[in-house]
Amino acid sequence: VVDSTAAQIGPGRRRGGPDAARAAALLDRFLSVRRATAALAAPLSAEDQQVQSMPDASPVKWHLAHTTWFFEEFVLSRAAPEYRRFHPRYAYLFNSYYEAVGPRHERPRRGLLTRPALAEVSAYRAFVEERVAEWLRGGRCGEADLDVLELGLHHEQQHQELVLTDVKHALFQNPLRPAWREDLPDPTGTAAPPLTFKALPGGVAEVGDPGEGFAFDNERPRHRVWLEPCALASRPATNAELLAFVEEGGYRRPELWLSDGFAAVRARGWEAPLYWERDGAGFVEFTLGGLRPLDLAAPASHLSFYEADAFARFSGARLPTEEEWELAARDEPVAGNLVEGGRFHPCAAAAEGEGPFAQLFGDVWEWTRSAYAPYPGFTPAPGALGEYNGKFMVSQVVLRGGSCVTPTSHLRPTYRNFFYPDARWQFAGVRLAKDLR
Amino acid sequence: VVDSTAAQIGPGRRRGGPDAARAAALLDRFLSVRRATAALAAPLSAEDQQVQSMPDASPVKWHLAHTTWFFEEFVLSRAAPEYRRFHPRYAYLFNSYYEAVGPRHERPRRGLLTRPALAEVSAYRAFVEERVAEWLRGGRCGEADLDVLELGLHHEQQHQELVLTDVKHALFQNPLRPAWREDLPDPTGTAAPPLTFKALPGGVAEVGDPGEGFAFDNERPRHRVWLEPCALASRPATNAELLAFVEEGGYRRPELWLSDGFAAVRARGWEAPLYWERDGAGFVEFTLGGLRPLDLAAPASHLSFYEADAFARFSGARLPTEEEWELAARDEPVAGNLVEGGRFHPCAAAAEGEGPFAQLFGDVWEWTRSAYAPYPGFTPAPGALGEYNGKFMVSQVVLRGGSCVTPTSHLRPTYRNFFYPDARWQFAGVRLAKDLR
Amino acid sequence: VVDSTAAQIGPGRRRGGPDAARAAALLDRFLSVRRATAALAAPLSAEDQQVQSMPDASPVKWHLAHTTWFFEEFVLSRAAPEYRRFHPRYAYLFNSYYEAVGPRHERPRRGLLTRPALAEVSAYRAFVEERVAEWLRGGRCGEADLDVLELGLHHEQQHQELVLTDVKHALFQNPLRPAWREDLPDPTGTAAPPLTFKALPGGVAEVGDPGEGFAFDNERPRHRVWLEPCALASRPATNAELLAFVEEGGYRRPELWLSDGFAAVRARGWEAPLYWERDGAGFVEFTLGGLRPLDLAAPASHLSFYEADAFARFSGARLPTEEEWELAARDEPVAGNLVEGGRFHPCAAAAEGEGPFAQLFGDVWEWTRSAYAPYPGFTPAPGALGEYNGKFMVSQVVLRGGSCVTPTSHLRPTYRNFFYPDARWQFAGVRLAKDLR
Amino acid sequence: VVDSTAAQIGPGRRRGGPDAARAAALLDRFLSVRRATAALAAPLSAEDQQVQSMPDASPVKWHLAHTTWFFEEFVLSRAAPEYRRFHPRYAYLFNSYYEAVGPRHERPRRGLLTRPALAEVSAYRAFVEERVAEWLRGGRCGEADLDVLELGLHHEQQHQELVLTDVKHALFQNPLRPAWREDLPDPTGTAAPPLTFKALPGGVAEVGDPGEGFAFDNERPRHRVWLEPCALASRPATNAELLAFVEEGGYRRPELWLSDGFAAVRARGWEAPLYWERDGAGFVEFTLGGLRPLDLAAPASHLSFYEADAFARFSGARLPTEEEWELAARDEPVAGNLVEGGRFHPCAAAAEGEGPFAQLFGDVWEWTRSAYAPYPGFTPAPGALGEYNGKFMVSQVVLRGGSCVTPTSHLRPTYRNFFYPDARWQFAGVRLAKDLR
Repeated sequence: VVDSTAAQIGPGRRRGGPDAARAAALLDRFLSVRRATAALAAPLSAEDQQVQSMPDASPVKWHLAHTTWFFEEFVLSRAAPEYRRFHPRYAYLFNSYYEAVGPRHERPRRGLLTRPALAEVSAYRAFVEERVAEWLRGGRCGEADLDVLELGLHHEQQHQELVLTDVKHALFQNPLRPAWREDLPDPTGTAAPPLTFKALPGGVAEVGDPGEGFAFDNERPRHRVWLEPCALASRPATNAELLAFVEEGGYRRPELWLSDGFAAVRARGWEAPLYWERDGAGFVEFTLGGLRPLDLAAPASHLSFYEADAFARFSGARLPTEEEWELAARDEPVAGNLVEGGRFHPCAAAAEGEGPFAQLFGDVWEWTRSAYAPYPGFTPAPGALGEYNGKFMVSQVVLRGGSCVTPTSHLRPTYRNFFYPDARWQFAGVRLAKDLR
Repeated sequence: VVDSTAAQIGPGRRRGGPDAARAAALLDRFLSVRRATAALAAPLSAEDQQVQSMPDASPVKWHLAHTTWFFEEFVLSRAAPEYRRFHPRYAYLFNSYYEAVGPRHERPRRGLLTRPALAEVSAYRAFVEERVAEWLRGGRCGEADLDVLELGLHHEQQHQELVLTDVKHALFQNPLRPAWREDLPDPTGTAAPPLTFKALPGGVAEVGDPGEGFAFDNERPRHRVWLEPCALASRPATNAELLAFVEEGGYRRPELWLSDGFAAVRARGWEAPLYWERDGAGFVEFTLGGLRPLDLAAPASHLSFYEADAFARFSGARLPTEEEWELAARDEPVAGNLVEGGRFHPCAAAAEGEGPFAQLFGDVWEWTRSAYAPYPGFTPAPGALGEYNGKFMVSQVVLRGGSCVTPTSHLRPTYRNFFYPDARWQFAGVRLAKDLR
Repeated sequence: VVDSTAAQIGPGRRRGGPDAARAAALLDRFLSVRRATAALAAPLSAEDQQVQSMPDASPVKWHLAHTTWFFEEFVLSRAAPEYRRFHPRYAYLFNSYYEAVGPRHERPRRGLLTRPALAEVSAYRAFVEERVAEWLRGGRCGEADLDVLELGLHHEQQHQELVLTDVKHALFQNPLRPAWREDLPDPTGTAAPPLTFKALPGGVAEVGDPGEGFAFDNERPRHRVWLEPCALASRPATNAELLAFVEEGGYRRPELWLSDGFAAVRARGWEAPLYWERDGAGFVEFTLGGLRPLDLAAPASHLSFYEADAFARFSGARLPTEEEWELAARDEPVAGNLVEGGRFHPCAAAAEGEGPFAQLFGDVWEWTRSAYAPYPGFTPAPGALGEYNGKFMVSQVVLRGGSCVTPTSHLRPTYRNFFYPDARWQFAGVRLAKDLR
Repeated sequence: VVDSTAAQIGPGRRRGGPDAARAAALLDRFLSVRRATAALAAPLSAEDQQVQSMPDASPVKWHLAHTTWFFEEFVLSRAAPEYRRFHPRYAYLFNSYYEAVGPRHERPRRGLLTRPALAEVSAYRAFVEERVAEWLRGGRCGEADLDVLELGLHHEQQHQELVLTDVKHALFQNPLRPAWREDLPDPTGTAAPPLTFKALPGGVAEVGDPGEGFAFDNERPRHRVWLEPCALASRPATNAELLAFVEEGGYRRPELWLSDGFAAVRARGWEAPLYWERDGAGFVEFTLGGLRPLDLAAPASHLSFYEADAFARFSGARLPTEEEWELAARDEPVAGNLVEGGRFHPCAAAAEGEGPFAQLFGDVWEWTRSAYAPYPGFTPAPGALGEYNGKFMVSQVVLRGGSCVTPTSHLRPTYRNFFYPDARWQFAGVRLAKDLR
């Protein structure tokens, strides 16, 4: 099973030099990723880390344990023969959705697991970290096992982002509107550059993982597509632009919306993006640093696909396809307002970049119009890790480019994120596109 | 508005000869389509035509009135200046989803409209038919108006299919399992031909409406796509093949299913396709002619996308994309077990056709793996008729090919049907596909 | 079983003379009750009689069949040995809630039974009527069987009232607001007499069935209670008085409501009694004769217990207990605006009666503050008919006195009706009470 | 407002000696009650005290804060003019249901309030305790204010019980089945005495608060009732007796249940009392000390009213009325397995008491057949404290006698507890009764 699992993880194994060197490099990376996760949770009390504000979100404590279980289940239990599990029931508690691994605690009830306590979860993390480090130092790691470890690092980075988006949602449920951290920096004060549209040529293009480093299975295989000429906006839409949408009745005009989208508007009483709150004549917004004046120059965030789509229609434009986005981004460096920058909130770009498209990476994930689907020739691996991505390929929509809470090393131009079209609690915004004919 | 509406309806206007001849031809077609609808409802009592078995379905009586309202609203009220509406409130009662036309009765409550009585709805039909005929005979119909009339005919044909699928669902709710008609023919008794896979070449292909006759806006514009080589099954999967899936535990094996699909299996207690009922060791199936032994040679039907997808995975195959399907079908005549054949149920093909693919048209709609999305360059028309298709382009899945209850003249190789992935009450089945590499 | 069933039905059997005379009298009554039911349904089309507007209500057609099944199941099948059932599945379709009789169709899905058609149900009624008549004329009816027949007559009278309340609710769902009958009389035009309070003495009193005729088991045994002195209103509260409650913010003031009641107000958006609709500055009300100006002098109707209770608190009063009500009514004749009067709507009393309390019977059922509970010593009979009343003795509230759609011969001073506290679709109103100390 | 509030609290004010002495005595009691609450929470982590397992339950931390707010709101803010609130928003967060006090946090979302942290809530408790103590020592407390303080003590004792029942429910949601305290004593090992029935005479009796000490308003006024002769069981039903009910199919036999009760059994899949878990052929039960073998001799607990009622029917008996129960208990001392005994679980009585009825107080609350309703002449006080009891007087059922987690000083023979008939998370059991005629 492990071999075939490795087969799907892919190009990583072709990249290494000798395994020992790769193991050493991965150990550094492993320790760094684990520390980063702990640092995100550190400002939160045990109580803050306990709660689950909705079935789609998980408690921070659960994220801490689940990412640890991933290494225990898929690396140590399979590759380190002498490994004994920290607790016999943690696989039940902290398995997220792997049917092939066995039964598990119901997702909507994760917030009720007061035991293990946070301190025990911390001990679990330390225990597994030590065993992984030992194993990596032991010099007997097969390439396939290292591939799984590397997958585990990217998995944990995904959860780093979810720690912040989930706790933001949880804190927002509290009428006191408490902050994750009180010391976050203020907006940049920079104005947003004017919005222009930059053309992309049509014709046959190649998209998907070029095989030069780690990629998820859903980015493969690289394949050809036919694109029509189009133009993409030079930057994401700003809060000022969304505010115009709000003020011109955007949330009350069915002709701007997909039918399911307007049904969501009505059923949930949406009147503005998530985390906007009316304050006198204007709006304030809830951030990881608490309530703040709405930063009009910053990219709009916490939009559902429905809102992104309606805003695009309001703007006489449309959303880009994921292939168009990838074409625009494929030669761009992964840089921008990402988690390492320490802002934890979208902001106007401090200075214009050199390419035609600003803020492709970081700030906000950008909704595409593409349904999340298998690429031509996609085959999920056998075994539990085949469940990682493939089984979600229906009814969700692709987002691209990462956000202000995504780790830089987690991203690539070919990276495909995906959420249901009504999800609003991610840092998700919109870059407009137009047909060119 | 009408002009721009016409613009989107499209090629019809380029096809005509003089308008008078077109009007005369459309009058014949109009009367024929209207009679066909009435004939489908005729075996049903006023009570049968009253009920609504679920929010997705509508009462037969409502279909009869709604299709009539379509001509009243979009043809007579706009093109025939002297027209006076039959009843001032029918636009409220029988508008389905056109926000631009005005408010309307809630969809899930259509079954509570005991007034107007069926007899009044019949009078409404006759009234509008007479006015439309007068208008067509009057010799003053603009081309754009005739385009809308033609759209109304295709609209009514869509509802003819829904009359049968909705009433089948309604009758199935009755423990007596009553028939729509007692006199339907028995199965053909023919065995299903062996299942083989036929290759399709890769490369750039053109799909979408070629502009030679009526098409819906969602089939346009014709555009290029890049396809990888693949193979499609020579015929749809049969009940015998689905029975093997059931008996080998297909409905209890999560590894075969998309995550949302298996959640639906669990939540709704699915154990077999809709309308199958256990009968001793085997199954019987509910048909428009009542309960019958399961016809193992016939194409399997009443599958959701989730089931079609899981069955494909069970079979070591996948679903085709809509473009692959269209490539296979583009040179095939629209013929087969369609509504005119009078079977009203899928059956094994009586004789093999000449092309490589049997039963592409008729019997069962074939689920594709393609999300229902706008074609590149798609722009819905301004005005209410722009709501016809475009606003549903999210979270639904494309089906192709028509069923045993689809009118032949309603279909084309480029025709795109669409339903949510959990919908099972349509005559929907599965044709397998495979990658070729 | 039948014997013990009879035992619970009670005093009827002691009342008879010779059985033959009783059978003859019951035959007259049987035919008369059955005709009365048919007359109530007669103004309705088959479609009107098909629909079910909510799980609490049943289709008129279902009422027609269910009351017939009652005689088939509990009289003919048990007492007439040669009887053959009309249809083998009707017991499944038309059993309401008798677990001891066997499984049955789900209550919320009664509206989907388009078969048997209304014509078949009419044939079923005629078939059973003929057999019952034969049996009664046959001269071999045991007293216990006649008791059950008599119970069946009272049962059918209960359903006569439900036919009207259920169809009123169903017609109200239609935006056309159609009438059950267009020819109903206008309001009386009489003013309501002034509201006064009349004292009732305290002490030990006897309540419950005195054994002089038919009574339901829930009225027995007659027993002693201790009552404190109190005063009851001379008449039910009028629409004018409820209108004051509405206009003085009654539906927005939580201090007037039970906690569950105000939760219902909020959750369901109640702003006035059911069937009131705002019309400019005032209200119109939906009646069995269609929409009409609100008759301010008539007793207020279609109140839930919650609303009756809140109105009483608003009025500085309370609801009477069921024993207090019975004490006030025990010597009053059963007369007033009952179904035979042909008004089918509450109205101001045309002339004052002789007793201290007007309109105790008819017009509106009067909510008491008494939970529906077993009387001391109550024991439901063994067998299916023991389910008639006893198993509902929790969470419901007692109403007394009958309404404008109750048959006169169905009522008694000791009669206990009961509904959940949120039910509003009955003709239910409020008579105020006060403590006297 | 305070004066009239005091009026309803009642006899307390007639009991005092000089106010100063009463204030001193209340200070002792206040400090003792507050310490007792803290002691119950002490074994729990901040995480344990955070969660809310269902809308009916509250987090332990919330109980700690809410009981504190009660003194702040109803005593300090009204009686201590110089008092400044600890936090301006706590009234919003910790008001339970007092509409007259103002808006409040939604009950089902209490578990999401991670802030204030437990440490802040502890500081809040200390702050208010100090201010109350100062105020009591200040020598200027009016009798009415002292009445409210005394009410606050009884209020906090109610919440002491809820702390344990709510946290038991929360811990039970965890598949690890963790204990509140690991050190709880084992069962007594005593056998249950045989079950006999002891007669109670009929006639006029007086029930309700005799005015000799504190009582809630819902226990007043004392009043006369007429009772029929009956017999009550000598002790509550045991787990052995409930096990027989389970094993003889009690949960599958509709004839034993009220209609609503059996609907609950079906909808929720009940197969045994709450907290019983199958373990091989038998059952274990979840306790505040974790999973344990089912103690067959102990009083059965965690029954809903529906189950208590069905068990009584199964036993050929019925539930007592609350008046019958009070008659049996009125001369009994409040003693037994109460919270001070430190068992925190029902157990067989170690020795038989002297009266005819064992275990009337403590072990398990005993469901009566009486709906929770106002006593004749009951009038809730004006002002917010009038919401304490009166607004819940519909659809709930009275329980009597206290449980193994009730403070002794909180109980009286006239004490009326009340819950909805489907509630199972309280320590609630059943004492059988029979008619005597």
